[in-house]
Amino acid sequence: MPLVKLHVPATLPADRCHALADAVHAGLVATCRVPPADRFQIIQPHPATSLLIDPHFPDVHRSHEACIVEILFLTGRTVQQKARLFRHIAAGANAAGFRGDDIMIALTENEMTDWSLGNGRGFGENHHPLV
Amino acid sequence: MPLVKLHVPATLPADRCHALADAVHAGLVATCRVPPADRFQIIQPHPATSLLIDPHFPDVHRSHEACIVEILFLTGRTVQQKARLFRHIAAGANAAGFRGDDIMIALTENEMTDWSLGNGRGFGENHHPLV
Amino acid sequence: MPLVKLHVPATLPADRCHALADAVHAGLVATCRVPPADRFQIIQPHPATSLLIDPHFPDVHRSHEACIVEILFLTGRTVQQKARLFRHIAAGANAAGFRGDDIMIALTENEMTDWSLGNGRGFGENHHPLV
Repeated sequence: MPLVKLHVPATLPADRCHALADAVHAGLVATCRVPPADRFQIIQPHPATSLLIDPHFPDVHRSHEACIVEILFLTGRTVQQKARLFRHIAAGANAAGFRGDDIMIALTENEMTDWSLGNGRGFGENHHPLV
Repeated sequence: MPLVKLHVPATLPADRCHALADAVHAGLVATCRVPPADRFQIIQPHPATSLLIDPHFPDVHRSHEACIVEILFLTGRTVQQKARLFRHIAAGANAAGFRGDDIMIALTENEMTDWSLGNGRGFGENHHPLV
Repeated sequence: MPLVKLHVPATLPADRCHALADAVHAGLVATCRVPPADRFQIIQPHPATSLLIDPHFPDVHRSHEACIVEILFLTGRTVQQKARLFRHIAAGANAAGFRGDDIMIALTENEMTDWSLGNGRGFGENHHPLV
């Protein structure tokens, strides 16, 4: 139910893209109690001329492999959980060959009643159809 | 003024993509008082390897036609309106040949003052230019 | 740290796309105290059949160059700042050859603790690693 978008350089090989996707999902499962099967991710490759990323702001050193990860998920995670999520994703990405500075993450939040996972049923309805 | 993104498999024919877009807009008009002319939609096709969608979570059965619909719209819709919106979209998509389980929807909200529909005027300014 | 997405017609020349991106960033710097180096933008070209934009709603006249700009940034900007941002972007786009009516803007907000700009550190942590 988190919806994850991975904005990656078009030159990044597919296996690296998927390793990053795996790292993001593992981070969500480990730190935010996301069920392992609750995986919805979109990999969006962009040519270098379309991905305008400052190489240094605020105090990092990004390479041509810099990626931006967007996560839309339910409100309610604590600041501490978010901090752990960031570290978990960076560590997983690092294990997959990414430089930590190349992983930027932006979170946005919504409510349980903002999701339908199928068949026109709201998630807040526990997937029992309304009468 | 809702901004709709339709993430669809790249193999989905154009007429099916547009039928889904129609269903989403009809749902917004019917359940959320969106004016019929207020239509802003982006169809984003993705290859299967870039659209990582769990086939079953939480209790549905998705096919290779599974789509993710994102809707950004004004805050203020009730839980009931959102539930009706989900059902309306699913019913419309179903009429267009989609399986209900293949339509996932995520809503996010913002304020009237967060929109400019043109010419640098905020929507909250009723489209009269500021002095 | 604002994350900007520019949805543009695929036929728009690259230099025009970048001029629009420049105008958006200049607007953020001038009106919302965004540091000049804090630039993260994604240009997303779409074919005309995938960019469904009403030509007139609510009272404008859009051309085949109509663009949609999404900005995700920190909460806290005032209504006045947002109004100034819209005008600044439209003026800059105009100077780059765009018609004002062709620039639609949607803002969404999140918190400082929702960003990691690299290396797994939350932005709210001032980029000092957690112990």
